[in-house]
Amino acid sequence: MNQDYIQPNPWSILEDGFDPKHVKSSESLFSLGNGAMGQRANFEEKYSGDTFQGSYIGGIYYPDKTRVGWWKNGYPEYFAKVLNAPSWIGIHVFINEEELDLNTCKEVKNFRRKLQMKEGVLYRSFDATLQNGVQVSVKSTRFLSLANDELGVIHYEITPLNRDVTITLTPYLDSGIENQDTNWDDQFWKTTEVKTDGNQAFLLAHTLKTFFYVNTFMQNKILLDGKVITLNPKSFTTSNYAALSYTKEITAGKTFSIEKMGGYITSLNYEKNELVDVANKLLEKASKKGFNVLKKEQIESWESIWQMSDISIEGDVKAQQGIRFNIFQLNQTYLGKDSRLNIGPKGFTGEKYGGSTYWDTEAYCIPFYLATKHQQVARNLLIYRYNQLGKAIENAAKLGFTNGAALYPMVTMNGEESHNEWEITFEEIHRNGAIAYAIYNYVRYTGDYSYIPKYGLEVLIAIARFWQQRATFSNAKNKFVILGVTGPNEYENNVNNNWYTNYIAKWCIAYTTEQIQHIKTNYEEDYVRVMHNAKLSQAELDKWKDFADNLYFPYDENHQVYLQQEGFLDKELIPIKNLDKAHRPINQKWSWDRILRSVYIKQADVLQGFYFFEDHFTKEELERHFDFYEPYTVHESSLSPCVHAIQAAALGRMDQAYAFYLRTSRLDLDDYNNEVEEGCHITSMAGTWMSIVEGFGGMRVKNDMLHFSPQIPEQWKSYTFKINFRNQIIQVLITKDKCTFELYGDGQLTIVLDDSLVTLTPKEKMTV
Amino acid sequence: MNQDYIQPNPWSILEDGFDPKHVKSSESLFSLGNGAMGQRANFEEKYSGDTFQGSYIGGIYYPDKTRVGWWKNGYPEYFAKVLNAPSWIGIHVFINEEELDLNTCKEVKNFRRKLQMKEGVLYRSFDATLQNGVQVSVKSTRFLSLANDELGVIHYEITPLNRDVTITLTPYLDSGIENQDTNWDDQFWKTTEVKTDGNQAFLLAHTLKTFFYVNTFMQNKILLDGKVITLNPKSFTTSNYAALSYTKEITAGKTFSIEKMGGYITSLNYEKNELVDVANKLLEKASKKGFNVLKKEQIESWESIWQMSDISIEGDVKAQQGIRFNIFQLNQTYLGKDSRLNIGPKGFTGEKYGGSTYWDTEAYCIPFYLATKHQQVARNLLIYRYNQLGKAIENAAKLGFTNGAALYPMVTMNGEESHNEWEITFEEIHRNGAIAYAIYNYVRYTGDYSYIPKYGLEVLIAIARFWQQRATFSNAKNKFVILGVTGPNEYENNVNNNWYTNYIAKWCIAYTTEQIQHIKTNYEEDYVRVMHNAKLSQAELDKWKDFADNLYFPYDENHQVYLQQEGFLDKELIPIKNLDKAHRPINQKWSWDRILRSVYIKQADVLQGFYFFEDHFTKEELERHFDFYEPYTVHESSLSPCVHAIQAAALGRMDQAYAFYLRTSRLDLDDYNNEVEEGCHITSMAGTWMSIVEGFGGMRVKNDMLHFSPQIPEQWKSYTFKINFRNQIIQVLITKDKCTFELYGDGQLTIVLDDSLVTLTPKEKMTV
Repeated sequence: MNQDYIQPNPWSILEDGFDPKHVKSSESLFSLGNGAMGQRANFEEKYSGDTFQGSYIGGIYYPDKTRVGWWKNGYPEYFAKVLNAPSWIGIHVFINEEELDLNTCKEVKNFRRKLQMKEGVLYRSFDATLQNGVQVSVKSTRFLSLANDELGVIHYEITPLNRDVTITLTPYLDSGIENQDTNWDDQFWKTTEVKTDGNQAFLLAHTLKTFFYVNTFMQNKILLDGKVITLNPKSFTTSNYAALSYTKEITAGKTFSIEKMGGYITSLNYEKNELVDVANKLLEKASKKGFNVLKKEQIESWESIWQMSDISIEGDVKAQQGIRFNIFQLNQTYLGKDSRLNIGPKGFTGEKYGGSTYWDTEAYCIPFYLATKHQQVARNLLIYRYNQLGKAIENAAKLGFTNGAALYPMVTMNGEESHNEWEITFEEIHRNGAIAYAIYNYVRYTGDYSYIPKYGLEVLIAIARFWQQRATFSNAKNKFVILGVTGPNEYENNVNNNWYTNYIAKWCIAYTTEQIQHIKTNYEEDYVRVMHNAKLSQAELDKWKDFADNLYFPYDENHQVYLQQEGFLDKELIPIKNLDKAHRPINQKWSWDRILRSVYIKQADVLQGFYFFEDHFTKEELERHFDFYEPYTVHESSLSPCVHAIQAAALGRMDQAYAFYLRTSRLDLDDYNNEVEEGCHITSMAGTWMSIVEGFGGMRVKNDMLHFSPQIPEQWKSYTFKINFRNQIIQVLITKDKCTFELYGDGQLTIVLDDSLVTLTPKEKMTV
Repeated sequence: MNQDYIQPNPWSILEDGFDPKHVKSSESLFSLGNGAMGQRANFEEKYSGDTFQGSYIGGIYYPDKTRVGWWKNGYPEYFAKVLNAPSWIGIHVFINEEELDLNTCKEVKNFRRKLQMKEGVLYRSFDATLQNGVQVSVKSTRFLSLANDELGVIHYEITPLNRDVTITLTPYLDSGIENQDTNWDDQFWKTTEVKTDGNQAFLLAHTLKTFFYVNTFMQNKILLDGKVITLNPKSFTTSNYAALSYTKEITAGKTFSIEKMGGYITSLNYEKNELVDVANKLLEKASKKGFNVLKKEQIESWESIWQMSDISIEGDVKAQQGIRFNIFQLNQTYLGKDSRLNIGPKGFTGEKYGGSTYWDTEAYCIPFYLATKHQQVARNLLIYRYNQLGKAIENAAKLGFTNGAALYPMVTMNGEESHNEWEITFEEIHRNGAIAYAIYNYVRYTGDYSYIPKYGLEVLIAIARFWQQRATFSNAKNKFVILGVTGPNEYENNVNNNWYTNYIAKWCIAYTTEQIQHIKTNYEEDYVRVMHNAKLSQAELDKWKDFADNLYFPYDENHQVYLQQEGFLDKELIPIKNLDKAHRPINQKWSWDRILRSVYIKQADVLQGFYFFEDHFTKEELERHFDFYEPYTVHESSLSPCVHAIQAAALGRMDQAYAFYLRTSRLDLDDYNNEVEEGCHITSMAGTWMSIVEGFGGMRVKNDMLHFSPQIPEQWKSYTFKINFRNQIIQVLITKDKCTFELYGDGQLTIVLDDSLVTLTPKEKMTV
């Protein structure tokens, strides 16, 4: 764990001092994104040391031919990879013909990176002594505009300190990039046009197979001591590279700098023959505004995001930095403007895992977006799955399901399954349940029922059909059973009657059946349309009911707990605390069979069900199950600690809840799993938010009312968060001994605080 | 199924007429081997159509870097591939400068292939009309010498029929070969020397990484109308190719021919600097003998093999051809001279699956070699595993086992695990049991106990240790359990308490413990040596006993059957006969999850246990289990029908036994699984032999005595086989109404015939 190198700070991620060993980790941690595109915090100037270059455009992917050791029938042919996009950030810097490269400098001093989360701006500065003896001071400022999400801006300043020198700045565009994550080292991009024109350049390229057309552009302005100067650039191009070279003699102490604007115009949003024109117009507009105005807009945009989504913690700077980093990265990754996009597990910070969409979105991310954004954002996430229903039905058909049953993919970009491990792809079917649950959760939170008749019901019916078809009848048990699944705990494969899977399957049937009834009564037109298309007969509904009424759930009378799956109690029940630390993490130390036959749980499984369906169980039941399972849980999934934090808090175990909170909130900053180089764990960051709001704050929505049961970790003086509940904003401030609510909106709002009704009035602080 | 294109014939495999669609299948079916090397039946002359070129040398392999979609901890780094070796069989044939190529000829007539199994010689002949109008008649005769297993011989004859022509014959050696089975398209061979000298040529090449050095050589003799002529060849070489070109004007009706000798001298058997000298000496000797003498030796060698191992069937030519083909291929693959070699699943007929050694050897092949060869042959197969014990201990250590526990690999060439599917590699651990069983089987059959104190005990102890460590204790059951395994039925993965696995585990402990006691009493010196090395304490023996005494076996009281694994009865018990044929074979039609949750069984699993341990169960128990499991068994493993044939026969169900026999014996000839192109199913061929000898003949060895319970399929008039039992040969002739035994050897032998004792006297036929 790199627990010391990121400096604690409430609003910034800070790195002081240059250490090549930290470059790849920092490239992940200091990543920038604006919901539409993003990039790792690669240096603008050349870096010949160990680095992981990455620029990404949301929604642009490549179907990479599947690679397996041993093919299994039903595997997908292609894996939609997160695609490294042409890079526009690069600036070669030559000083008296020696290229600036922190890996080869004689000395690097005063190196500092600062990701100012409040502003959404990345700052970097250092003093370097080159091999030729020249000392320079460099400052770089970079951001990806939220106001115009096709645009990024760099201000790169260089000041020779000890001599007059000749400096050449060569900003460039490069589409000769490669994916780190590739199955067959295929080329993913084809560049069709490379052009420079004055201070501008363009690269037109398209992805192979998927034919996404992308115009990668740049425009440069050169300054001396902050004043714009005119320098005619030299132009260099190759088949996938365009550079403009600006050379000037610079007196020691003077600052030579470049403002480089760049970004992408893509065929996701425009006709492919418009891509150059649109970029020209965008650059014209952006130049008129200039760097300072664009930066001011950026700060304002982030201010308005923070206005709504900030969580401020008093008395615990590491906890504060952790939660802000999580909220910042979530907003960098997904802003909900475009229902074709989703929340990739690495966001725009890396390529690992591929695909953009996992059950993480529905199970972990939606609550964050529901509470901190307009409800349209969460609705867009639901519509994303609605739009992919046809593909989910095709996925299910490949596995032998019929009659419109849908199995949503484990990993996808466009609705097609990308993953290819049979125990996951074919068997981790609980994901289907989370997609139904998200519809329920959306309606519960927003009160916007309209989504279901218009879109949701079709999805629910297709999912219900899947569950009923997936079950088989056990004569031995005289019950329906669901055989051969992998639950949320992926450290069990191909088990029978995973309790969580069975529970959510049964719930899906019940919820879908209820919605059909409700829509029949209240949305006749939608009812007729959906039923006509679905051809859902009473006989099929009867089959659903028979399945749901007679589904088997493994339960142990002795421990009075639901069993994670059949046979769970045949394992050696050795608590993880009794396992020698040398064996951990078990996923790095043990072979897969040993993990599988052990009792150890990767992430909440039965407890995930208790989280989703908290009201179905008593607190005693929760406590019993928590106490039974948590001691065997290794939390080797980033998605595990948050659920445990919320449940520990609900059980009044604040020390434990706080420990889980820290683990989830600083997972990447402290690099718990020694893998942040590959990118950040974006989706689990929403779990961090849940740990505070649902965990410590005890926020719930029940019967159309907001509930709170506030608690505070011992280490904190206070914390405050805002939530948007049905278009009213409620700010909650929790201190050691009281709780203050402030309502922004028009009408009053009655909430439930620890079982008491409290009525909030706009602009009146209510302290309890 | 190509059920019609191979002509039924008692002693030959015959193909009449040229059909390019059959080329790859025939390349497999007409393959040649001599135990040390082998080759697919590729044409000598160029063939530009669809073909699968393959030459193989026993014991020479390449560790190909593992390819997986998703890496699991514990996977092997390398897969020992069956390696396509340099080819020595090729002869380019030019007629008036047009190259002879059956794929481009105007017409091909009278095409016939004949694999004369009695002689071990492959004949091919055809008449072709070239595009240039020339008609030629071609005959080729080829064999791989058994007498000298480094040598192969070709006689290739060409006769122009309608014109005088110029013919160029260009025999060549080629090491620029590629594996069809390769993970990364790596080069496997490096050629270091290419040389021609008169009528000879050599290629020196070595495998990359493993550094096996191979001298591939040839020597040619040219004949006109059967008389040797002197023609000075032109020599052509490249970095991995050597050719000699012989040109002559040939009058219509005259026969121009070449005798090409070729083969390999390898560093498996010689120092690498001797390889050329040894080849020279070999060629000198072989030339002196000449083609006719070598062919005569070949026929004699095969005669002596058939003398012992032939099974002759009267009245059923397809059954006769089937069993002879199986016996022939087994002998081509493995002759037991070299304990570094083993019996690959495709032998020398293809590359698929990789590795040379599977549990097939111990479970299916050893009985054949025990009964048809000197006992040293089976002993060599046991020693192969003994020699790899160290690697098996390393394999187990990678999976967390300690203290000298061994897990033999699922697939191997040199003792290291090659396979990389977690559910197989880590979980199909029953293979360990078969290796112990083979020791038991060897001693039971041969009476040669000496193997155990000298070698076997160490293996048995290491295997027993594995089983005891692999089990865990279930408090819920108050029994030891073996969790997370794949049984012989690979259509179940990661199941708990697979009955077969548990049964053989328990048996291994009991057998090992007995042997320790026996050796303690009778082989004191070995006892001291082995115990000293193994450091086996009484405490550990107590643990073994505790495990064996308290191991759980799933059993259903209702059906009174042992359950294949826990939870088996939760499946939908739909007999395979009720499944729509469109769904079969399920491994081609269903996704893996669907196969896993179905009841369908790939190959005998509980019944495999009943086969190994027949005496532990009553006939009623066998019948009950056979009737319970067989209806769900799809026999999609080539290893399944033989066990069922034997058991059906034991139950007196000869019709069913005969159907299973036909399926196993003609699996490749009739291409049941539509995959013979990839090579033949060599190891299951031993199962065919068992179907007759143990199935119909009812041969068993109990208490040091041979038992028979002869039956005969209705379709047959008689059948006869020989077995070598403890250095006495017994010939058994079974007809509809009687059974005749003939003993070859010195003393009398008392056998048990259907529960009666019968004493055989040498050279006296005994008819009962």
